[in-house]
Amino acid sequence: MKKDKVYRSTCPQYLGLEVFGDKWSLLIIRDMMLENKRYFREFLHSEEKIASNILSNRLNHLEAEGIISKGQDPKHKQKIVYSLTQKGVDLFPIVMEIARWSIRYQPVDALRKAKAQELLGDGTNPWQLLMNALTETHVGGGTAQSAD
Amino acid sequence: MKKDKVYRSTCPQYLGLEVFGDKWSLLIIRDMMLENKRYFREFLHSEEKIASNILSNRLNHLEAEGIISKGQDPKHKQKIVYSLTQKGVDLFPIVMEIARWSIRYQPVDALRKAKAQELLGDGTNPWQLLMNALTETHVGGGTAQSAD
Repeated sequence: MKKDKVYRSTCPQYLGLEVFGDKWSLLIIRDMMLENKRYFREFLHSEEKIASNILSNRLNHLEAEGIISKGQDPKHKQKIVYSLTQKGVDLFPIVMEIARWSIRYQPVDALRKAKAQELLGDGTNPWQLLMNALTETHVGGGTAQSAD
Repeated sequence: MKKDKVYRSTCPQYLGLEVFGDKWSLLIIRDMMLENKRYFREFLHSEEKIASNILSNRLNHLEAEGIISKGQDPKHKQKIVYSLTQKGVDLFPIVMEIARWSIRYQPVDALRKAKAQELLGDGTNPWQLLMNALTETHVGGGTAQSAD
């Protein structure tokens, strides 16, 4: 985490989203994880067409947060190669659970859908039991009780 | 998904983040999933202090996306009660995988950390094998290869 940053709460979801919850960070992480992209120019050419100043800003942010690291490409000394740190690799479950949701509800193209399904394996959702309880409460007409 | 919305790509991560990847949506979802909050005033009182106009906007957005539904509270006819749809319940794995990451890397308070750990169970990460390959490539000094 960044030094001296003031957080609004100590909740895990909030504290995670403060690091990678902007519009672009997880897409750069996705490029590194699923497309093996490692260079500035490769990120720039991604389909969503990130602007180069925003890309630059996001890469610096992710480096400052310890999610990625910068190194010299051994084959081209003047080129910078970006790597995920362990802290970055540990975002993989989030990236894949977003895919699980999207291939169910969003117009993902067939090729990427097949690729995601392959990574998701037999489709077993480790969270199914806890989700069944939520479905019962929310979708199945359970009574709302005030949290106050 | 919203009608006639133009997407920049058909990638699952992008298409998911377009729906819930703003600063507040997943925090409202979190309130419903983990705190059993169901009323406007309850969301408003969350620790991150969302402004009421933004909350209103986000609830409308989530309803338009089919993530939540609005209903009349059977006990107080004039009050609106918000429920997750199945599409909303299916965001649970994302919410919990963010928690898994945050309790490892961010200053989550002890009480919420214990609660998250209880939900995460024995800590088994269903993505561990695939993550080991990423660690080898990125952290373990694997050679970067251009994705072009």
